[in-house]
Amino acid sequence: MSILLNPRAWDLVDHVLKTASDYRIESHELKCGARVVDFGVNTKGSLNAGLRLAEICTSGLMEISVEMGQLADCGWPMVHVRTDHPVEACLFSQYAGWRIEAGKFFAMGSGPMRATAAQEDLFKTLGYKENFYCAVGVLETRQLPDCEVVAQIAQKANIEPRNLMLLVAPTASIAGNLQIVARSVETAMHKLFALGFDVTKVAAGLGSAPLPPIAKDDLAAIGRTNDAILYGGHVHLIVEADDAELAELITKVPSGSSPHAGRPFIELFKDAKYDFYALDPMLFSPASITIENTTTGKVHTAGKVNHDVLKASFGLN
Amino acid sequence: MSILLNPRAWDLVDHVLKTASDYRIESHELKCGARVVDFGVNTKGSLNAGLRLAEICTSGLMEISVEMGQLADCGWPMVHVRTDHPVEACLFSQYAGWRIEAGKFFAMGSGPMRATAAQEDLFKTLGYKENFYCAVGVLETRQLPDCEVVAQIAQKANIEPRNLMLLVAPTASIAGNLQIVARSVETAMHKLFALGFDVTKVAAGLGSAPLPPIAKDDLAAIGRTNDAILYGGHVHLIVEADDAELAELITKVPSGSSPHAGRPFIELFKDAKYDFYALDPMLFSPASITIENTTTGKVHTAGKVNHDVLKASFGLN
Amino acid sequence: MSILLNPRAWDLVDHVLKTASDYRIESHELKCGARVVDFGVNTKGSLNAGLRLAEICTSGLMEISVEMGQLADCGWPMVHVRTDHPVEACLFSQYAGWRIEAGKFFAMGSGPMRATAAQEDLFKTLGYKENFYCAVGVLETRQLPDCEVVAQIAQKANIEPRNLMLLVAPTASIAGNLQIVARSVETAMHKLFALGFDVTKVAAGLGSAPLPPIAKDDLAAIGRTNDAILYGGHVHLIVEADDAELAELITKVPSGSSPHAGRPFIELFKDAKYDFYALDPMLFSPASITIENTTTGKVHTAGKVNHDVLKASFGLN
Repeated sequence: MSILLNPRAWDLVDHVLKTASDYRIESHELKCGARVVDFGVNTKGSLNAGLRLAEICTSGLMEISVEMGQLADCGWPMVHVRTDHPVEACLFSQYAGWRIEAGKFFAMGSGPMRATAAQEDLFKTLGYKENFYCAVGVLETRQLPDCEVVAQIAQKANIEPRNLMLLVAPTASIAGNLQIVARSVETAMHKLFALGFDVTKVAAGLGSAPLPPIAKDDLAAIGRTNDAILYGGHVHLIVEADDAELAELITKVPSGSSPHAGRPFIELFKDAKYDFYALDPMLFSPASITIENTTTGKVHTAGKVNHDVLKASFGLN
Repeated sequence: MSILLNPRAWDLVDHVLKTASDYRIESHELKCGARVVDFGVNTKGSLNAGLRLAEICTSGLMEISVEMGQLADCGWPMVHVRTDHPVEACLFSQYAGWRIEAGKFFAMGSGPMRATAAQEDLFKTLGYKENFYCAVGVLETRQLPDCEVVAQIAQKANIEPRNLMLLVAPTASIAGNLQIVARSVETAMHKLFALGFDVTKVAAGLGSAPLPPIAKDDLAAIGRTNDAILYGGHVHLIVEADDAELAELITKVPSGSSPHAGRPFIELFKDAKYDFYALDPMLFSPASITIENTTTGKVHTAGKVNHDVLKASFGLN
Repeated sequence: MSILLNPRAWDLVDHVLKTASDYRIESHELKCGARVVDFGVNTKGSLNAGLRLAEICTSGLMEISVEMGQLADCGWPMVHVRTDHPVEACLFSQYAGWRIEAGKFFAMGSGPMRATAAQEDLFKTLGYKENFYCAVGVLETRQLPDCEVVAQIAQKANIEPRNLMLLVAPTASIAGNLQIVARSVETAMHKLFALGFDVTKVAAGLGSAPLPPIAKDDLAAIGRTNDAILYGGHVHLIVEADDAELAELITKVPSGSSPHAGRPFIELFKDAKYDFYALDPMLFSPASITIENTTTGKVHTAGKVNHDVLKASFGLN
């Protein structure tokens, strides 16, 4: 692959920091030299900050926009995404596959720093490890990382602490909320990967999901952002594959294929005692999926939006 | 506030003027040194000119786009807006709060020059006056301003005439029509202000409204552009406030809260003998509004689109 | 007209080639010095490549985007277009009016090179011939052109072979499929021209059409891309004209005005023995059209989307 992820993300961060105050974000350098950019912990953030955060999280390989659309019969903001590099943008960058724990610090880690560390199974299966001297990560958490957190990440990524940039946004923040809902295509890609499909066959993807109202706390926000994708996400993939394989696969892709689907995520999460790993992994995918097979021109489609759950989750009557 | 409005708008005008002929706009310098940019008086203008005019009018603090959407069951162009700086973009810049009269000249004045003059009550209430040596204004009128008009504005804005740029577009012009309909969020913000809400609590806003067909004259165009917002505008605001206050407020925000609502604006205007100030000020707001409260995660929503009035206004059967 | 088309297109190609590998396109120089850019013959191409190809094909005078929308009750990608220069963008550039045949080579030629050759009737009728030393063309074909093809084009365009750039994409390719469906406004403009309307009266146009699934071969792709426009295309034009003329014209504009409409294009094409010129020329236009007349403010509208044919064509049940 000729696309290097971390330098792309690094350049995007540099660009965003030139007008940090417009974005209502703040950047500071830790003693160890790493840079931490606060997108919503001690800052207010903004929708534009959320768009930039989502772009950086995909190494600049996804086009992301938010504009007024429709939720059931109601005007509602929708997050639109599109990528020509779904493996690199979604699986090597955007997927929140790195649990970061250091003392009392906890965060879901995403962004291209994962590709430099390449410790997750998916990097082994897909045969990618990025050899680059700097790295950019996105942390979903309400805690700002310190040098201990940096040291752990830098060591796994095999880079100097001063060459690490960490962008931080809580789930229940303007920017954090948006960047998570920019994951409609990512959840479809990861589900396909989990189902054993050769994801390198996916040439491009488009998706949309409603932007949930920012929740009162991070737990409630985890509920709403998941609902936005699970019950409101549409994904369309362009693949080069075998129709028999796709026909068998397609019904397993939408979230509705999971027996757990049909209830707000927060309830399912509570039943699972707030342990992501106790939940059915097949749940994490968009409400509806269309896969077009360029080899034969056939179209495979499954799933549908669940407006009732979305309205309940978002607090609409 | 660290955001200076007029220099942002000035830079945008400079940029637009580099390709003025593509935009079908024309710029000329008056004897007093002020620059007048004609977006539709003696020029044809364009949709792109309308987009740039709307952006300049918000000091570059609003993202604006127009694309085909849906009006009832019909394909129709929609104007989408989004801002992370609703007070600065909408109230300090975009709101047409400056009546400009000089001899036979009349125009509704908007744009950040208002913030330099800061003579409207809202600047006093919100405590803002921009101290900058140049200013940019947008005039909704079919008359090109002369040095007398410039002198009046420059004097109130406390700047040299040569440091004033005035962008002019009639209501019934391609660019003028579009820039007015980019005011869905602005009308919601101004209505909230008029209702006594602390508008600095609004962190971001999104909106949409149908682009009305350009009317045969400016009076008819006033009718259609108002109808587009009043009966077709959706607004979504992200605020940090108190739910009790929002619950009481929300039903008052949509245009439907006014007893005058439900008829084409041109009829209401005629009844009011074409005097804006004789109309119910509560009328000027979008058809539907959603306010999400980030403090509690609660969502408040009221109002709905009135397709019948829109179709009658736009001349669709 | 002050707008030169080919230099605009040339600059856009130059810019795209800087990141050719991101677009999954390839450029090579022929012996005769002409440059051929492969957008999907021996390359995979991409959605972004399709967007750039469509923009270049309109000499940069059309805004084009693709994002998730709705097809019947299903999430589906839509191609949105908008232009303030419909004659230059659509008729002088984008219309595929140049049949290129050289030995076994065949392609439908579009792009601003047509304006340099100016051999089609429409250039005579509209009085335009571009006098410029370089030219850019778009070829819808699965064959890469050689120096014989270049020589023929260069001679007709009266330029040196080394000053010609040819961009190539098959109908059944990611980029080719997208660039064709960016022709909703173009088909409306050409239909108006064919009906004898003075197209210079059209000030601006907007359109949308569903992005069809890429077909298994170019013939099937011709079917789907035509269906996307004929049965799914919405177009909105802003014109300065006479209402009586528009009232008479409007019902003739949508594809439904043709007695052949209502069946998938591939069937009609088969009946016509795969000869485009044996088909009713009145067929080639969008499903629905709205024309607003700025002279009087009147709106003329005709036609509607045919979801049944679209679903059959796209292989949706």
